[in-house]
Amino acid sequence: METLKKLHENVAIMLPENGLEQKLQQAEKENRKLKIKLGFDPTAPDLHLGHAVVLKKMKQFQELGHQIIIVVGSFTARIGDPTGKNKSRKPLNLEEVKHNATTYIKQLSKIIEVDQAEIVFNSDWLDNLPFSEALQLISKVTVAQLMQRKDFNKRFTENTPIAMHELIYPILQGFDSVQLECDIEMGGTDQLFNCTMGRQLQESHNLAPQIVMCMPLLRGIDGTEKMSKSQNNTIGLTDDPNTMFGKTMSIPDVLIEEFLNLATDFSIEERQQINQQLIEGENPMNVKKRIAKNIIKQFHDEQAATDAETFFINQFQNKKFEDKSFKQVVITTLNLQSNALTTVALCKIFKENLSNTAIRRLIEDGAVQINNEKIKEPYQMIEIAKNLKIKIGKRDFYELQ
Amino acid sequence: METLKKLHENVAIMLPENGLEQKLQQAEKENRKLKIKLGFDPTAPDLHLGHAVVLKKMKQFQELGHQIIIVVGSFTARIGDPTGKNKSRKPLNLEEVKHNATTYIKQLSKIIEVDQAEIVFNSDWLDNLPFSEALQLISKVTVAQLMQRKDFNKRFTENTPIAMHELIYPILQGFDSVQLECDIEMGGTDQLFNCTMGRQLQESHNLAPQIVMCMPLLRGIDGTEKMSKSQNNTIGLTDDPNTMFGKTMSIPDVLIEEFLNLATDFSIEERQQINQQLIEGENPMNVKKRIAKNIIKQFHDEQAATDAETFFINQFQNKKFEDKSFKQVVITTLNLQSNALTTVALCKIFKENLSNTAIRRLIEDGAVQINNEKIKEPYQMIEIAKNLKIKIGKRDFYELQ
Repeated sequence: METLKKLHENVAIMLPENGLEQKLQQAEKENRKLKIKLGFDPTAPDLHLGHAVVLKKMKQFQELGHQIIIVVGSFTARIGDPTGKNKSRKPLNLEEVKHNATTYIKQLSKIIEVDQAEIVFNSDWLDNLPFSEALQLISKVTVAQLMQRKDFNKRFTENTPIAMHELIYPILQGFDSVQLECDIEMGGTDQLFNCTMGRQLQESHNLAPQIVMCMPLLRGIDGTEKMSKSQNNTIGLTDDPNTMFGKTMSIPDVLIEEFLNLATDFSIEERQQINQQLIEGENPMNVKKRIAKNIIKQFHDEQAATDAETFFINQFQNKKFEDKSFKQVVITTLNLQSNALTTVALCKIFKENLSNTAIRRLIEDGAVQINNEKIKEPYQMIEIAKNLKIKIGKRDFYELQ
Repeated sequence: METLKKLHENVAIMLPENGLEQKLQQAEKENRKLKIKLGFDPTAPDLHLGHAVVLKKMKQFQELGHQIIIVVGSFTARIGDPTGKNKSRKPLNLEEVKHNATTYIKQLSKIIEVDQAEIVFNSDWLDNLPFSEALQLISKVTVAQLMQRKDFNKRFTENTPIAMHELIYPILQGFDSVQLECDIEMGGTDQLFNCTMGRQLQESHNLAPQIVMCMPLLRGIDGTEKMSKSQNNTIGLTDDPNTMFGKTMSIPDVLIEEFLNLATDFSIEERQQINQQLIEGENPMNVKKRIAKNIIKQFHDEQAATDAETFFINQFQNKKFEDKSFKQVVITTLNLQSNALTTVALCKIFKENLSNTAIRRLIEDGAVQINNEKIKEPYQMIEIAKNLKIKIGKRDFYELQ
């Protein structure tokens, strides 16, 4: 019962509701492992805390002795988006797919035991599927059914083109489950539709339908959209400890509970305790520090967590300019017209993307310090010298070499 | 100019409007034949006057020296309708496809020179199309585009299921034109959408787009729906002369002009003359006789046309019972309980499908004659004897043997 309760923890959608209990009983009765599938799109191999939510659930099954199957969507990745409309889906060649898969598996190893996982490429069966059999498969699904997928429906209603092959991709994902005879397919809640396709196709192939387990989508550190690379709001599993700490500290307070539940490995009791402390007036900043350290401990180690906290406090919380860590920057004389630069021109070296106007405003607002002295004059001449220290905004520290 | 005018004659849709002129000029300039495609569904090999409308137009091109290509849809026929919902589309094996194609070609020979036509099977290229390439092809078309096809749109709006492979079939038909590099695709007006698909796919494969020529759909002899086997309202190209004559005589008067234009091979002048006669009060029955004879002359010969007219006049117009042609029917004594039967039981032998009540009503209405005598008593006992002549309704004559 304790096991079952833990497996249900955090799950957003379980289909059918009592499916997991039945599958577990069945596996025990038949003395076999459950096959638990997770699909992976090899066009985007960078994993973040959002992926970790699903992977940690997979890990639980692995610890219970069940079989994890990672399906690399190599067939569809190699077709890409032939319309060329979706730039993130350009076709990959086999080498690129393999390279991305290797990167991905390396990152997976931070959470699951990859040695015990089965890693398969769906091009192994889809490359050789005769077109006539593919059509037989495709015929099992109706247009109206596919149009129920929210994004398809929205685009159809708004007259945004949907290329026909896009409609077929969910069917192929479902066919992977037929091929692998999966018991469970996992994903984020945005994968519910595609996973359900697997159930239907398994049934039409006279196989027991898989159950679908969808985990909640962790929001990104900006607190708006789901965490995703394209939104530039992720904490990556391979981020260095200082970056992880800083990013976690930047989340809005409303995300604290979500991060506690989905991003940390605190026990239920610990989480309840922390929530209680917040209610009693604990500073949210302190809770975020605990969350940040917990996250770093999961993907690096305890020491890295402590060090990152110290760094953060020195860098962003203590006022002393000298204690900061400065990024060492070499400026070749080639970059310079003379030995001295205006404040604006100096800052522009580090903030290439900002306009001169934006930099001038930063300076006038007092956001720029040079050698521990606030410079509010945009056109003051600054002499360029080794060890000149420049602070721009709250977080960026540079030292010339 | 005369040639061009004749090619345009009866055409319902020409896409683009001046496409035919351009294609003809191009062919002349390049000193080559035009390739003119007609698709054929090998699940329904029985040709009728509706098909003849298109085929006679093909024949015109053939007479000008161009290349007719008949595409047997063997790939899709062998897939059929895997959902099993559409019973007319059950999958055929290769033998059945070949058999149907042979039947079809034999019927084609009544109109076109099949020896000079190219007859191809689309399974030749679709069977070996790798699924990945099929997806590339499919991706060229959007869902919204396919949903413009009237029947798809209607079914989608009315929540009648459309299986996904149905959406793909028009794309495959279009691909046939890519494969064959057709200059012209012909069909009935109900094929406009599918033929246009060929234009689009040829363009996306950097080929010159075919022009689309759609002929009007001849209505069936009941004057309502288009002529089609499923509506049981056809005049078949292989119907015997008497059947052709009888069916033509049965068309409603409003169809006369349509049949004159689409089913006969009268010249424009002859048709104008006949129309003038109708305006001046000619009996439509006489015009239908001329149409019937013309049709029989096309698919049988002049003599057969004259004989059929004589038969029709004797059988249905002259009153003399003795002059009728009676179907010779052998009734084995096994069928009979005794030497005599009630009128109902006797009629039931020939009209198995009618209920006793329906037969009784026919008798009471005076529609049954036995040996030139109207019998209005359903339960009168009729002695069964050789050469007993029975007339039921207007058209059915039987003689016992």
